[in-house]
Amino acid sequence: MKFQKSPGTQDILPGAVEKWQFVEDTARQLCRRYNFREIRTPIFEATELFQRGVGETTDIVEKEMYTFTDRGERSITLRPEGTAGVVRSYVENKLYGEPDISKLYYIGPMFRYERAQAGRYRQFHQFGIEAIGSTEPSLDVEVIALGYSFYTEVGLKDVTVEINSVGTPSVRAAFREALLGFLEPKRSLLCKDCQSRMDRNPLRVLDCKVDQKHFEGAPSILDSLDEECRSHFDKVKQGLSDMGIPFTVNPRLVRGLDYYTHTAFEYKAQGIGAIDTIGGGGRYNGLVSDIGGPEQPGVGLGLGLERTILLLEHQQVEVPGKHGLDVYVVALGDAADREATRLVYELRSRGIRVERDYGGRKMKAQLKSADRLEARYTAILGDDELNAGVIALKEMATGEQKSVPITSLAEELLQGLK
Amino acid sequence: MKFQKSPGTQDILPGAVEKWQFVEDTARQLCRRYNFREIRTPIFEATELFQRGVGETTDIVEKEMYTFTDRGERSITLRPEGTAGVVRSYVENKLYGEPDISKLYYIGPMFRYERAQAGRYRQFHQFGIEAIGSTEPSLDVEVIALGYSFYTEVGLKDVTVEINSVGTPSVRAAFREALLGFLEPKRSLLCKDCQSRMDRNPLRVLDCKVDQKHFEGAPSILDSLDEECRSHFDKVKQGLSDMGIPFTVNPRLVRGLDYYTHTAFEYKAQGIGAIDTIGGGGRYNGLVSDIGGPEQPGVGLGLGLERTILLLEHQQVEVPGKHGLDVYVVALGDAADREATRLVYELRSRGIRVERDYGGRKMKAQLKSADRLEARYTAILGDDELNAGVIALKEMATGEQKSVPITSLAEELLQGLK
Repeated sequence: MKFQKSPGTQDILPGAVEKWQFVEDTARQLCRRYNFREIRTPIFEATELFQRGVGETTDIVEKEMYTFTDRGERSITLRPEGTAGVVRSYVENKLYGEPDISKLYYIGPMFRYERAQAGRYRQFHQFGIEAIGSTEPSLDVEVIALGYSFYTEVGLKDVTVEINSVGTPSVRAAFREALLGFLEPKRSLLCKDCQSRMDRNPLRVLDCKVDQKHFEGAPSILDSLDEECRSHFDKVKQGLSDMGIPFTVNPRLVRGLDYYTHTAFEYKAQGIGAIDTIGGGGRYNGLVSDIGGPEQPGVGLGLGLERTILLLEHQQVEVPGKHGLDVYVVALGDAADREATRLVYELRSRGIRVERDYGGRKMKAQLKSADRLEARYTAILGDDELNAGVIALKEMATGEQKSVPITSLAEELLQGLK
Repeated sequence: MKFQKSPGTQDILPGAVEKWQFVEDTARQLCRRYNFREIRTPIFEATELFQRGVGETTDIVEKEMYTFTDRGERSITLRPEGTAGVVRSYVENKLYGEPDISKLYYIGPMFRYERAQAGRYRQFHQFGIEAIGSTEPSLDVEVIALGYSFYTEVGLKDVTVEINSVGTPSVRAAFREALLGFLEPKRSLLCKDCQSRMDRNPLRVLDCKVDQKHFEGAPSILDSLDEECRSHFDKVKQGLSDMGIPFTVNPRLVRGLDYYTHTAFEYKAQGIGAIDTIGGGGRYNGLVSDIGGPEQPGVGLGLGLERTILLLEHQQVEVPGKHGLDVYVVALGDAADREATRLVYELRSRGIRVERDYGGRKMKAQLKSADRLEARYTAILGDDELNAGVIALKEMATGEQKSVPITSLAEELLQGLK
């Protein structure tokens, strides 16, 4: 019987995984500098959390969730995004009781049952941050800046930021009326999705990729902003300008999630053919109380790691973190093999990266492995060396070779590797 | 509406997460030295994989799996352990075609629907390694040594290793008969679980915690070993002795998984009250072909991270990786706030760990935050400083304070932090 991975999932193998490690390390280091600390929430949560936290009328909740009944008859869902779980944890663990605001980050798998297509996975991975506890526009700016820095520090070129204000709920209600007034006469011209969205979530109609031609002259939410919203948005723009982060205002940007207020933003990059959205986020001043917590404003982002890595490859960015080896120990014969087992353990315990042979292969095959693994040294141990208590150490770059007492090999290597 | 995490799952919060980061970093560094490379397989797999790979008669498959039907009518299961997925990936991606053996590691969540109790989680986390492609006993020794080094390097004290040989399938079949001959007369004395195991998997009867009193004089699998098994086992013991790794032979150790051949081993440590098994593994020479691959022998281990961290706490081991901050920027007034937003971004872009205030709080409150976060410096920016183009920089340990041009603050800090 042959087994295959489930459709829409992937294996990340040695050779590719080093890119993931690099991207994640970059995210972690960046978060340390920005004083965001890691939070890990469970892979699955009660289904109601996502219905409430992500929004009943979103595509995610309507069509894409991995929802099941567990052995205890509870409805659970594999998390389709990271914010709802983090906010649930913030509320349940009463992090709002701490003296400073909560600045949290997460890295991990998310799950959406999407149509399988290139670059779209049902298990995908996000790096996200959530900053909860302040309405200050400088915090929106910081979150946007962290995401921008992430992309530039992993090495992506030509990343741009689009921002918008989606206002407060009352501003949005007024804009909703104005927008419907504009859309109603055109209803029959619009696609099925748009017609359905007009009834449930009209703001998202303007997001439609098919119907853009019908939206010329549509009202802009920016014209509906009240004084508070406008001032908040102005400060966000000012902060980004002060930092020198390139951005454009896109008044049709609303994001696929219902919970945003004020700032919404996306990162774009030149993908294979088209401009892709590679991440985004926004402010969510109502979400914490929506899921049972106190009135606490928040702002966050979520960045797709698959897309980041795909773009790194597309832009042919060289990623550091190559696999390497300090020394390959070649052992010839049973007695040498036994000593090699001990010696290799000793070297590794001293912090040296070591590989050896595990099949009693001939010297030539072992040396080939040493080459393939790009070992900086090879150390050869046969019966003669063993009897003399020495090992033949060769530096691969120079070809220099010397005989070293086995007991001082670790010291010798640690000197040479400095 | 209030939401709670699902029973048996946990939130790992800042303050606790640093221990996880430390333990995982230790595992990753160790794997680099041993030339194990990371593999990431999906969180869920086809259910049949685990039925076949873990074993139909195991507790895991019989009672503990999170098994569901997805939107495409496939039966999928959240992985209950790491080996089956890695071996599936090894076969599917034809890693056996590579010139060297495959040495792989993984770190991640696993899922078992167990009775909720202290220290037992339904989502738990394992660090595991799999070495596939060699029958050499030195590879068993290396795997055992890596696990032992992991525990000692994270700082756990008094970890011991128990080992056994569970032989080849034909050795086990003979032992099975001998064991049943011993057990049958005692059947009515044994617990329900043991009676059921006698019919399905008699070797695991000897594992029973309740019935040990009835097993005196039971045959030992070590007496059934053939020449090949004995020689393999002798070499494993010899290798561990050569390395100075403390171990005992426990002939009743069989592990809860069906796939082991030859070497089986467990790590034990003094827990809260009792001696706990904190990890284990073994050789699995039939597993790769069992799940549709070529005949390729393997050996691996899986270590529970929850138990490791619980024991670190129990043994009061101080863990490095404390959270820290280089500088806290105190901004007073709107103009200073705007400049702080830009300045903080600049400092972070230069690699400095920086925090600031996000609520327009008074100086005293901001300085308290700086203290709490253990900032090495505070930098104070008010209207006067802003007009003069300077910032007041104070080193917290010495109390030393000086006025620094804003434009050279980053340089000044990078010098001071060296």
